Amino acid sequence: MDRREEILIAASELFRENGYHASSMRDLAKRVDMKGSSLYTHFKAKEEILWEIVSKGADAFLRSAESIDQALNAKDKLECLIQGHFDVMTNELTNATVFFNEWRFLPDDLKAEMIKRRDRYEAHFRQAIQQGVDESVFKTDDVKVATLFVLSALNWSYQWMKQDGPKALPELIDYYSSLIMQSLNYKA
Amino acid sequence: MDRREEILIAASELFRENGYHASSMRDLAKRVDMKGSSLYTHFKAKEEILWEIVSKGADAFLRSAESIDQALNAKDKLECLIQGHFDVMTNELTNATVFFNEWRFLPDDLKAEMIKRRDRYEAHFRQAIQQGVDESVFKTDDVKVATLFVLSALNWSYQWMKQDGPKALPELIDYYSSLIMQSLNYKA
Repeated sequence: MDRREEILIAASELFRENGYHASSMRDLAKRVDMKGSSLYTHFKAKEEILWEIVSKGADAFLRSAESIDQALNAKDKLECLIQGHFDVMTNELTNATVFFNEWRFLPDDLKAEMIKRRDRYEAHFRQAIQQGVDESVFKTDDVKVATLFVLSALNWSYQWMKQDGPKALPELIDYYSSLIMQSLNYKA
Repeated sequence: MDRREEILIAASELFRENGYHASSMRDLAKRVDMKGSSLYTHFKAKEEILWEIVSKGADAFLRSAESIDQALNAKDKLECLIQGHFDVMTNELTNATVFFNEWRFLPDDLKAEMIKRRDRYEAHFRQAIQQGVDESVFKTDDVKVATLFVLSALNWSYQWMKQDGPKALPELIDYYSSLIMQSLNYKA
């Protein structure tokens, strides 16, 4: 692992534990056993570190959604989206936690960039749900609210997924997924 | 409004905008146009203010759940719980936002107290869902996960409810509620 990556991992843990604002570059330097001045050769400012972490999180979610075969039927597509969401959460729980808790502290221009990526991610879910309505396998009167509902249920899960405990159980994810299908009145 | 209440409202706004750790007692004194020393006659420490806000939020959620007629059938009970959750969110969005974002910064003993109240709140939802299974109006294989799912979908909503925009629309809440009923395979 290169030094830069090591700093990012330590920063992510630090921000998760104490919050972005309560974590100083000095705390971070101490955690990675570096002099403050050496830390600044890697990152110019704490803000830059937050952006890297949040951006990495957003990209992981987007990459997961964008890797899904567009030819799938709506139900399979939505299941892949849900599975992918949990995979990212499981593999990057520390980054994901920082992502959800701290992104609001980015400067306005970077916040606007994150909102764009979030909207792109949301669009994948909305499109899959709309496709299901078009294929008559989902029944919902308001695709926009249904999308909000599904993503709300998924996003909150970082709160109950254990940081140090066992990974999210596959059965749990399957069951969560089936609750979502039912909420959309899934009929094969 | 008494002075103490005024300070709490200003603190809640300050914490929501900047986060707990980035908000100093000095910032708060400035916002309520007080001398720092006068502020300390009302609250001994910033921690005490966070506790008051978070505690007020938790109590509003609990009071709402505890006011529901226990004799209701499961569907009506769950609908009241959902409506109550949105009412608290709508009426106390600033406090609720601070509650969700900042409660983790409470000292350990107060955090433990909050977890107790959260568990009591969760139990109301679990009980209503279990009652629905017993009444054969809800069908779910795992009441625990279903409860987690419903509360996740509800808790995240503070993220998309507008701080300064129109209150959550009744139709939106009704539709959200119907998605939850469907996720539980509701059959009258």
